Amino acid sequence: MYQAPTEEIVHTLRHVAGLEAAMEAGRTGDLDAELLEAIVEEAGRFATEGMAPRFSNADHEGAVLSAGSVTTPKGWPQIYRDWREGGWNSLTGPEEHGGQGLPMALSAATFEMWNSTSMGFAIGPCLTVGAVEALLEHGSEALRATYLDKLVSGEWMGTMNLTEPQAGSDLSALKTRAEPKGDGTYRIFGQKIYITYGEQDFTDNIVHLVLARLPDAPAGVKGISLFLVPKFLVGEDGSLGARNDVVCSALEKKLGIHGSPTCTMIYGDGAGETGEAGAVGWLIGEENRGLACMFTMMNNARLLVGIQGVGVAEAATQKAIEFARERRQGRATRLAKGAEPAGTMSPIIEHPDVTRMLLTMKALTGAARSISYACGHAGDMARHHARAGDGDAAKFWKDRVDLLTPVAKAFSTDAGVEVASLGIQVHGGMGYVEETGAAKFLRDARIAPIYEGTNGIQAIDLVARKIGLSEGGAVANYILELRAVLEELETRNSDAFGRTASMLDAALRELEAATRFLREALARGENDTALAGATPYLRLFGLAAGGVYLAKSALAGDPKGERTALARFMAENLLAECPALSAQVCQGADSLSAGRIALGLDAA
Amino acid sequence: MYQAPTEEIVHTLRHVAGLEAAMEAGRTGDLDAELLEAIVEEAGRFATEGMAPRFSNADHEGAVLSAGSVTTPKGWPQIYRDWREGGWNSLTGPEEHGGQGLPMALSAATFEMWNSTSMGFAIGPCLTVGAVEALLEHGSEALRATYLDKLVSGEWMGTMNLTEPQAGSDLSALKTRAEPKGDGTYRIFGQKIYITYGEQDFTDNIVHLVLARLPDAPAGVKGISLFLVPKFLVGEDGSLGARNDVVCSALEKKLGIHGSPTCTMIYGDGAGETGEAGAVGWLIGEENRGLACMFTMMNNARLLVGIQGVGVAEAATQKAIEFARERRQGRATRLAKGAEPAGTMSPIIEHPDVTRMLLTMKALTGAARSISYACGHAGDMARHHARAGDGDAAKFWKDRVDLLTPVAKAFSTDAGVEVASLGIQVHGGMGYVEETGAAKFLRDARIAPIYEGTNGIQAIDLVARKIGLSEGGAVANYILELRAVLEELETRNSDAFGRTASMLDAALRELEAATRFLREALARGENDTALAGATPYLRLFGLAAGGVYLAKSALAGDPKGERTALARFMAENLLAECPALSAQVCQGADSLSAGRIALGLDAA
Repeated sequence: MYQAPTEEIVHTLRHVAGLEAAMEAGRTGDLDAELLEAIVEEAGRFATEGMAPRFSNADHEGAVLSAGSVTTPKGWPQIYRDWREGGWNSLTGPEEHGGQGLPMALSAATFEMWNSTSMGFAIGPCLTVGAVEALLEHGSEALRATYLDKLVSGEWMGTMNLTEPQAGSDLSALKTRAEPKGDGTYRIFGQKIYITYGEQDFTDNIVHLVLARLPDAPAGVKGISLFLVPKFLVGEDGSLGARNDVVCSALEKKLGIHGSPTCTMIYGDGAGETGEAGAVGWLIGEENRGLACMFTMMNNARLLVGIQGVGVAEAATQKAIEFARERRQGRATRLAKGAEPAGTMSPIIEHPDVTRMLLTMKALTGAARSISYACGHAGDMARHHARAGDGDAAKFWKDRVDLLTPVAKAFSTDAGVEVASLGIQVHGGMGYVEETGAAKFLRDARIAPIYEGTNGIQAIDLVARKIGLSEGGAVANYILELRAVLEELETRNSDAFGRTASMLDAALRELEAATRFLREALARGENDTALAGATPYLRLFGLAAGGVYLAKSALAGDPKGERTALARFMAENLLAECPALSAQVCQGADSLSAGRIALGLDAA
Repeated sequence: MYQAPTEEIVHTLRHVAGLEAAMEAGRTGDLDAELLEAIVEEAGRFATEGMAPRFSNADHEGAVLSAGSVTTPKGWPQIYRDWREGGWNSLTGPEEHGGQGLPMALSAATFEMWNSTSMGFAIGPCLTVGAVEALLEHGSEALRATYLDKLVSGEWMGTMNLTEPQAGSDLSALKTRAEPKGDGTYRIFGQKIYITYGEQDFTDNIVHLVLARLPDAPAGVKGISLFLVPKFLVGEDGSLGARNDVVCSALEKKLGIHGSPTCTMIYGDGAGETGEAGAVGWLIGEENRGLACMFTMMNNARLLVGIQGVGVAEAATQKAIEFARERRQGRATRLAKGAEPAGTMSPIIEHPDVTRMLLTMKALTGAARSISYACGHAGDMARHHARAGDGDAAKFWKDRVDLLTPVAKAFSTDAGVEVASLGIQVHGGMGYVEETGAAKFLRDARIAPIYEGTNGIQAIDLVARKIGLSEGGAVANYILELRAVLEELETRNSDAFGRTASMLDAALRELEAATRFLREALARGENDTALAGATPYLRLFGLAAGGVYLAKSALAGDPKGERTALARFMAENLLAECPALSAQVCQGADSLSAGRIALGLDAA
């Protein structure tokens, strides 16, 4: 059973992500090391005792729709109530709305734990975080007054309504329309798909944020506006009024996260009790600027999806290690040398091939965690310095969070899938049986590389937008910071690290070379050349950064030698992939373009 | 919808796997190029028209157990009857028992197509192939007379009963027992798990092959015997008699292949109608030599699992390409240059990142197919030359099939998982919805790296046993043969191949270096060093061989330039991984051993 790795989480937040320096410099409000540890410990206790034992391995029943109402799996609404009464929904919320105003990095750490217990459950509250952010930044005073307290406390949940059948990655094709009524309200008509927790039985009301087009809106993404559409209209006293004209018409049958209702939402089909057609909505931000509002939320939303990868990877790794310690098959060479009596079968963890799988799982999990927490911390620092009016520092950290977000999202969610798949393999035949729970991790993890911008789109974002930030200064600064860790490692000169330093150096060289190649290609206007290498470049970035972070973690304190051993394993084994990735980037688009013939796209 | 790639299959059999030379030398019986093509075309027609449209994408209901009887999904028994009446079960069966005596390589090609339509369906007949082989090689005349005709025709199906809860990869721990009755029969008592098609509604009778221990058997694998246990006893006239004391007590709820019943089988629990306890069984082969009988079947069984990987990969690739041609999102740089009117969204296949995913899928599928067919052909040649009394040639080919079998099994099944996962990614959100069918490929494919010897065990087999065959001659010969293709490629000196030749040369150098390293480590008795590198070595072997085979395929004929383009993509992109894999092998066990600290196994 899952045990929240609170010590590792605190260590990573403090000594890898950068909270230690920020706390010492007084940039984290009331949060000091003691409080940080207390909060993580308390969250860990709730995840370990109050959540993990209450979720089932086999989630095949999932959420059920009946006459427009959704029933989540047995016990989930109560878990949600217990969870929000523990104050976990309000962690990062603004204090003036009942929130605790704590850093996003800390929230990310708690979300890791919630996701480890059940990704299908934890994804719901992620969306509320986004709704709070959007309202806080762009909502009118009236909307903030009506909705923020309840969203911060978790009494109501939020949703994001973007996707339509013809508009997934490309929002320019959105068709949902909003008619202004002249009284400050709008009527929304259209169909949205893949709406996570679009309908549920956790909360009395649901606050939908919906992208739609005004009648006179320009075509494309510059004609999209954002609207708030509550499930029940809210009176001035906060009481719930008429049912709005929005209904869940279907749930998707998905590969995983079965407990999470993935809804088709119909707006304006006459299902409400408002006496007229059209879902009553209110504009958030300016007309035709909906995408800008979405961008506000995007970094955090993408980070929280990356955290899903981390959470599932951690849980899958724990389960696989536990299994590999218990399960005995065959006799490992090591034991044949006399550690156990002849004829005894070895725990499979003693077989080198299983050791390799488990170490790979653990290294990828730690790397993804480090990158994700560092990303969250960068966002916190950007907000802190912006509030403090320190423009240069704010710019530095905004660049950093913008740079790391696609890596945190894509590298971590790919790691989630890879680790979950290895976890099945460690379990052998039992891994394929649903009752064991190993397969569920893969089924759940597999969505994360897809939603909130596919990992391909993250890679394109990294290459086409992020490595050009501050004319390349953002990525250059970041690599310098990674190099500083390497220098410390070289100064330490400890045998226990093996060839870690030289492998990290090689990885960073490859990252530098690939970055240079892409920047030059973009400067020449060779977009296809750059885009062809986007996915291997993001992987290279994540591996190099993750490898450095594991070393940084070990350098910061390692009483049992475990962190050093893991950093060494990652550097000597997983970073061997870096030259291959760099080669794939730096060969450009030629072989990809040539390959089009094999897909029947071009003639020879 | 799946279209059997018959032209590619015939081309690969003839010009990559080696059937052309064998047919020309008269080593394939009646089979010539014309007949080969006719059979593949006919099989392809049945797969495309008679099977694919009759299987459902969403297989969530799966097989159901009720009072010991299994009901497979609706329509499956009829598909099985149509399939076997088409003669497809008897393809490789001996002619004296109604079979067609055709090569295993051809059978593998047909199994690829059956697996492409439904892996959960196609796995059933694989097990019958194994039962036929075991009986033919080791069964008494009486057993052969009673069972072979019906197993060859497919009127009855066979099963393999190996695994017990405490004995999976390690069969030495088997507990099922067999009591001799002195009349040539035995009574079997015990529980077997994960028995594929252990109970079903396709056939009137089921022929179980069961590993069990005799009362006086030595401990470990040298005390295991193989027994034939029919579901219904068979009279001398072939009629079905009393129900035997064997029953299916449970079906596993699995990640995938839901239509395939995975049974817990109880032997000797008094459920039969024979009037006494114990399932009536007959010894196959000699007492305590059951494992030798299993080894007879192992190469073909492992190859057929590899073929599952190929079949699923092919189907997933076709589906993803079809989707990527239809689905439009965003605007590709290429199109922005004027190929389509402004404002048009591009088919996603035009985006370089999607092109990369699809080409990776297609290349891995082609590589896995080539290796698997070559492996099947080597087995055919070994049998042919053994029958012809040509000991040297038989030894050469036996070495070859032994060498390639773990690669065909593990590389192809890993490819199946990787390709299916990429297929989901190409589909975006729709890939995660079960109705689409992309997710089912991943759920199905995920078992193949586990059963019939996990891929870790295949890698150990390759390193610990196979690269030492004929004192290293087997692997040396094989690499020489791959080098000969490279020489032909260099002679051809065609621009269309880009840097294929130099990448193949580099890959083969890495394979040579890694092979040398492992052979030397084993010679020094450093087993852990060798085993630590087993998995990366197998992947290196598969990539290098697969890369060469794609080039060989292109060199043998490529009117549309598609094969050349694919070979080039594979060489320039996927083979970039080879140096990393070789580095992982050649660093030995040090960082793995050091990493044990991170798993809490050793102290620092």
